Amino acid sequence: MNVGDRHYRTIWLSDDGRSVEIIDQRWLPHDFRVEKVSTVAGIATAIRDMWVRGAPLIGVTAAYGVAIQMADDPSDAALDGVWEVLHETRPTAINLRWALDEMRNFLRPLPSGQRAEAAYRRAGEIADEDVSLNRAIGANGLEIIKEIVARKQPGEPVNILTHCNAGWLATVDYGTATAPIYLAVEAGIPVHVYVDETRPRNQGAQLTAWEMAGHGVPHTLIVDNAGGHLMQRGQIDMVIVGTDRTTADGDVCNKIGTYLKALAAADNDVPFYVALPSPTIDWTVGDGLAEIPIEQRSSDEVSLVWGKTASGEIAQVRISPETTPAANPAFDVTPARLVTGLITERGVAKASREGLKAMFPGR
Amino acid sequence: MNVGDRHYRTIWLSDDGRSVEIIDQRWLPHDFRVEKVSTVAGIATAIRDMWVRGAPLIGVTAAYGVAIQMADDPSDAALDGVWEVLHETRPTAINLRWALDEMRNFLRPLPSGQRAEAAYRRAGEIADEDVSLNRAIGANGLEIIKEIVARKQPGEPVNILTHCNAGWLATVDYGTATAPIYLAVEAGIPVHVYVDETRPRNQGAQLTAWEMAGHGVPHTLIVDNAGGHLMQRGQIDMVIVGTDRTTADGDVCNKIGTYLKALAAADNDVPFYVALPSPTIDWTVGDGLAEIPIEQRSSDEVSLVWGKTASGEIAQVRISPETTPAANPAFDVTPARLVTGLITERGVAKASREGLKAMFPGR
Repeated sequence: MNVGDRHYRTIWLSDDGRSVEIIDQRWLPHDFRVEKVSTVAGIATAIRDMWVRGAPLIGVTAAYGVAIQMADDPSDAALDGVWEVLHETRPTAINLRWALDEMRNFLRPLPSGQRAEAAYRRAGEIADEDVSLNRAIGANGLEIIKEIVARKQPGEPVNILTHCNAGWLATVDYGTATAPIYLAVEAGIPVHVYVDETRPRNQGAQLTAWEMAGHGVPHTLIVDNAGGHLMQRGQIDMVIVGTDRTTADGDVCNKIGTYLKALAAADNDVPFYVALPSPTIDWTVGDGLAEIPIEQRSSDEVSLVWGKTASGEIAQVRISPETTPAANPAFDVTPARLVTGLITERGVAKASREGLKAMFPGR
Repeated sequence: MNVGDRHYRTIWLSDDGRSVEIIDQRWLPHDFRVEKVSTVAGIATAIRDMWVRGAPLIGVTAAYGVAIQMADDPSDAALDGVWEVLHETRPTAINLRWALDEMRNFLRPLPSGQRAEAAYRRAGEIADEDVSLNRAIGANGLEIIKEIVARKQPGEPVNILTHCNAGWLATVDYGTATAPIYLAVEAGIPVHVYVDETRPRNQGAQLTAWEMAGHGVPHTLIVDNAGGHLMQRGQIDMVIVGTDRTTADGDVCNKIGTYLKALAAADNDVPFYVALPSPTIDWTVGDGLAEIPIEQRSSDEVSLVWGKTASGEIAQVRISPETTPAANPAFDVTPARLVTGLITERGVAKASREGLKAMFPGR
């Protein structure tokens, strides 16, 4: 999407045809830095140290890492080696593993002399496929936004609440939860986005707000505590969030706090949608609450807040007593009963086993 | 309550019998500062600039301000003057006005030569009455905690979630929502408190956590997003919050985000209690959602986070883009249907007009 006047993806091939350029997201929203990465070690660092984040983007970055390796050394040993090196950077990231497997399986049968070119081509395809997937999600979500517009006064904006960052920064472009928003903007529909700051890591305040500001989407930052109140007052027309994992029964695992917004939406008859590419559906799990283990992250993410001081320095401040321990569950599970619909690339499915089976009959 | 080895109130008369000493809460949890205040101007600053905060404490501080004025000049003009000066510091604070009216009405009939001594005595009584009120709330809340203990394994702690700071720092001692917790500790009952950080001003992280640490109460800081997840997992036995204003129908106006916790409690059959001194019941209002105006505070409270840097400096950091606007509603209304009970100094009332009338038959 746009950063001011210019369109960007989160990752693209350099003019040299060999390196990739990425947005180093660690400095957002305070500093917009593009970095050229030319080595496998550089790709590993970018994934491990979260210069790039978001499942789809991690996968694409890893695919380009394999391509860089093939340009250096297209041997079988190098192909296995780069798989190992990159897989270790974020071992629990499913998209990372998928992309590495995809690249290795695609390249293995090829003669080594053809591997480099084929690898760059396939990595580029994976990037483009992500964009297409997100545009398809966006188009399906746009239909919902249009239905809301039809019930409004002319020119009145559709107020959309989102939590965390399921935006273009988490993908190659468009994002998942944000795709319907960007397509609405493209279609000239007035939207206004309430952005949950999304403690503890503030991805809403740092990333989603930055995306909206860069692309010129009217938006307002709120604390995570405020969404329920806004819904009570009729100030939210719909909620759209992303998901890390959706179960075959339609339960949604997403950033901590999503469940509270879903409760408030249900209590106030506000439609609550989850946008997801179908590969994030985990068909092996039914009951999300019982079966999905929740990652416990560092207490420092709760106790320390990162930002920019008045003098322009990047700093962390402690908000609590040194002796106070903190717990930091990273995700929660929103039961399917609270989800109005699952916006996939194929259409909007009911959040239930029947709904998902009807949309994805092969599964 | 205790700060380490020593018991404190939030305000007390100095040894000179004329000044008061207060905890300057602006520096908590990073610095524990006690300030001696000897002038009306000093009292006005302490209230206006939030050295002291919390409705009951503001009232008591103002009462001592009147006493300081009477020691200086016990004339009728001075009595009216101090009322005006102190009322202007926080014009919407109901307890402030109540305490100023109470002091003026009490002092007016007295000969000016008796006013100073009477004023200090009455201010001290108001302080003691607050402590008694809170202890009574605590005793009634303790009965609920004891019922939960009775259903637990021996030695297993009662897990209590609280939001914001309705602690002893907001009162003279004990607090409202925290009074049952402190009385449970006095009774040797094992408790563990989950402290919501309470964005945007982080009163939970800064004040409630500091209180718990100082008094030695086991506690864990969490982001406001986490409480629903903990309830889903059975990790919360009860919620206790305070309130700024409770309606005659039992609707509860409290710090933004309270409503979300009440929804999660209801969804998970976790009892949700509100602790309140009966003077905060607004008998003139029924439907809190329709009738209570919600204060909109500065967007800087959302965009800037206050704390201590690694090098020990107090600083604010910006967490969002400079161009991103923020909305900051300070309170929300929790409908009575989500409230298990109202813990008052007289007992635990049902959150309904009938429940409140039964407990306060005169109203």
